Amino acid sequence: MKRVGKQTIIFENKPKIIANSAIVGPKEFAGPLKDFFDYRIIDDKWNEDSFEKAERKMLEFAICTAIRRSKKKLKNIDMLIAGDLLNQIITSSYAARKIDTMYLGIYNACSTFTEALAIGSVLIDGEYLNNVACATGSHFSTAERQYRYPLELGNQRTPASQRTVTGAGCSILSLEGEGPKITMATMGKVIDYGIKDANNMGAAMAPAAMNTLLAHFEDTSTSPKDYDLILTGDLGNLGSELLKIIMNNHGVDISKNHNDCGKLIYSDIQRTVQGGSGSGCSASVFNSYIIKKLNSGEYNKILFAATGALLSTVSTQQGDSIPAIAHALVIER
Amino acid sequence: MKRVGKQTIIFENKPKIIANSAIVGPKEFAGPLKDFFDYRIIDDKWNEDSFEKAERKMLEFAICTAIRRSKKKLKNIDMLIAGDLLNQIITSSYAARKIDTMYLGIYNACSTFTEALAIGSVLIDGEYLNNVACATGSHFSTAERQYRYPLELGNQRTPASQRTVTGAGCSILSLEGEGPKITMATMGKVIDYGIKDANNMGAAMAPAAMNTLLAHFEDTSTSPKDYDLILTGDLGNLGSELLKIIMNNHGVDISKNHNDCGKLIYSDIQRTVQGGSGSGCSASVFNSYIIKKLNSGEYNKILFAATGALLSTVSTQQGDSIPAIAHALVIER
Repeated sequence: MKRVGKQTIIFENKPKIIANSAIVGPKEFAGPLKDFFDYRIIDDKWNEDSFEKAERKMLEFAICTAIRRSKKKLKNIDMLIAGDLLNQIITSSYAARKIDTMYLGIYNACSTFTEALAIGSVLIDGEYLNNVACATGSHFSTAERQYRYPLELGNQRTPASQRTVTGAGCSILSLEGEGPKITMATMGKVIDYGIKDANNMGAAMAPAAMNTLLAHFEDTSTSPKDYDLILTGDLGNLGSELLKIIMNNHGVDISKNHNDCGKLIYSDIQRTVQGGSGSGCSASVFNSYIIKKLNSGEYNKILFAATGALLSTVSTQQGDSIPAIAHALVIER
Repeated sequence: MKRVGKQTIIFENKPKIIANSAIVGPKEFAGPLKDFFDYRIIDDKWNEDSFEKAERKMLEFAICTAIRRSKKKLKNIDMLIAGDLLNQIITSSYAARKIDTMYLGIYNACSTFTEALAIGSVLIDGEYLNNVACATGSHFSTAERQYRYPLELGNQRTPASQRTVTGAGCSILSLEGEGPKITMATMGKVIDYGIKDANNMGAAMAPAAMNTLLAHFEDTSTSPKDYDLILTGDLGNLGSELLKIIMNNHGVDISKNHNDCGKLIYSDIQRTVQGGSGSGCSASVFNSYIIKKLNSGEYNKILFAATGALLSTVSTQQGDSIPAIAHALVIER
């Protein structure tokens, strides 16, 4: 078995992340990671008829740019693994239509990006495929009107809310080539602490992040100090604070080297309340800021756990609490 | 590489389907497969507050029953791979909350069940996991009001429409044990012939089924006569006829041994127009009727390609055509 402990898979062939691409919206480009994003759109619709079509175009752009940067021919990209926040993940399925390759649609909300990397790594590590594109995206304007209220209402944000990131990212995984290596994956379980406030996803997701991180440290006999960075997906400011507290309650101190994509992407003066969220959040931050720091040697080994709140408008209306999940990867230079 | 041709993966360790379970609604139980279904619900809400909660309960029941039949302890089920038709696949995520195991949420519409079996087979064949539960479900009343109109309107069905199956199914895959073996998977590409009628999913999906079947026959140098049954997911009556015609146009005759879960599950007098559809269609038919015929020896080798129409209400409203996909598996006794 290529597994240690209960939830951690070992990749002996160490799939390489040979190319990346990220694209973000205007607000994300105005934030602190400006210098790390190679592409941005200037208006939220990107010359399309609808926000949904702009979201699709961003994901297609991220995928095509990453493939171009990998210097692989399209026919050598064996598979696209993708997901997004729109109902029936239409952004991903329409993006998959653009490229002539096998497609797996997946959905674990904002943890979809690490889910994609984990499945892609299994397919490559097991020598089933040579090159896999893993991509996710999200768009503030499509998510807002699907999950919450029409944009035109101009509703106030609640104090625990986060802003869905307008952005997309893609990583190309390969058996051969140069780039950071994925050496392990700790797959998450669904955790639900009974949070029912759909505007407080940080609180819903923090216990799932904790569960996966604790499982990882136990499975691999490591501790936070073994990693240059412990990166969560989109807990935001509040969720990150909660994670540190509940990890401390379990005797694990991550305060020295934890950060969160949802915290990184916006500055406080941008008034996004608790920071960013969405499946484009971790995808755009990882495929720009994080990958550049891995490639430059600033980070040698990171633990990357994107987190997802598995709710829908129907489950919220029916009074259900919010199940959450986190899938973690060890990525080494 | 454990691959032949472009799209077909070979499973050298031949993951076994060691246990199955299917549960259906009253209309499905009144159909021709009555004697093959071990469980049914008598009313569409199954004592729950909403159709959505009944759908969830059915999927949970299918998963728990299959695990029980596998004689494995819950702690030995390493992972649940599941998906469904509801927005944000909440049926699957809530079902995953019930069982303490790793979870991958996936979505390829009505082809989700074979997508789950394919990913599960890779994880077992590659010796990453020992036992994986693969499950999908759907519910007529939840799908109807999510995708189309309120049930109370009592809209007439259009001539090309299909009925979403109320049902769920689960297969337990294992590295060891007895049962039919999954020996290959041919993963699909997204195919779109420009069909825009959301009530004619058979026509939208037939080209995707053709694409995957042709790829499979080419990759493996086989032909329809090498299989006791070529089973599609939910093309229904019209889609199945279209598939035979377009396969014939490519010189491949599947008329002798093709059948379709959407055709099998209802009889003509049940007035479901073109038959059944939904991610519970192939899951409930495969995990009852088909698996029993594999276990009894009536079938020795089948090619099972569930098909999915990757549309959403938003994409339909915005005038988009319907992308489709099909993932195929070779299952041998």
